[in-house]
Amino acid sequence: MNEIKAINISEKFSLFDTQWTPHIIGELNGQYVKLCKLKDEFIWHSHENEDELFMVFKGTLFMDFRDRETLEVKEGEICIVPKGVEHRPRTNGEVVYNLLFEPKETQHTGDIEHEKTVKNPDWI
Amino acid sequence: MNEIKAINISEKFSLFDTQWTPHIIGELNGQYVKLCKLKDEFIWHSHENEDELFMVFKGTLFMDFRDRETLEVKEGEICIVPKGVEHRPRTNGEVVYNLLFEPKETQHTGDIEHEKTVKNPDWI
Repeated sequence: MNEIKAINISEKFSLFDTQWTPHIIGELNGQYVKLCKLKDEFIWHSHENEDELFMVFKGTLFMDFRDRETLEVKEGEICIVPKGVEHRPRTNGEVVYNLLFEPKETQHTGDIEHEKTVKNPDWI
Repeated sequence: MNEIKAINISEKFSLFDTQWTPHIIGELNGQYVKLCKLKDEFIWHSHENEDELFMVFKGTLFMDFRDRETLEVKEGEICIVPKGVEHRPRTNGEVVYNLLFEPKETQHTGDIEHEKTVKNPDWI
């Protein structure tokens, strides 16, 4: 019998400090729920086949796009970046707490191999 | 060019008062992000093929199961009910604000046809 439990999002965020390193907290329908702490700029990338949801729990996430204006995503807000859209998450220097929802096969750096790429995120 | 926007979850919750009526606020990878206000008991049901995520934004959600103890899911917590597991969401009389994440084809009453069944939730 698989365990069904309540997962406290704040508690999970307190378990790690590394930035730009996604941690998995749940799985359903072939998708992962991940937490990530963000600071400063990430790399430009896109996901060929997967839409990606960002939900901000602390701070303000700035999402840059090549073809449209930067989007501000504040605490308590979500944004969905459709597949194929090149984007660059960044912050204004503060640490932003972000929840991600995306298919299990999604690499957070998209099709870019980068020093920040984490191939197999840990479960926490 | 599709719009990519920041969606404020609290603002979306303020747009409706009906209980047990899911409203769609986002779509990605064949899944919907829905908001629902819950009060008192829902019906027992299960989803044959779909896992279901609950994320509580206000109040405490009680999830009853046939084969295990009731789970309390508090504000800031999530729980994932795997496919096939019979469950009954309920509250202790308060109105609970809940975010759902599930495949587009998921009916909130599972395979049960009930007066509470909403076949085609509205986008808000």
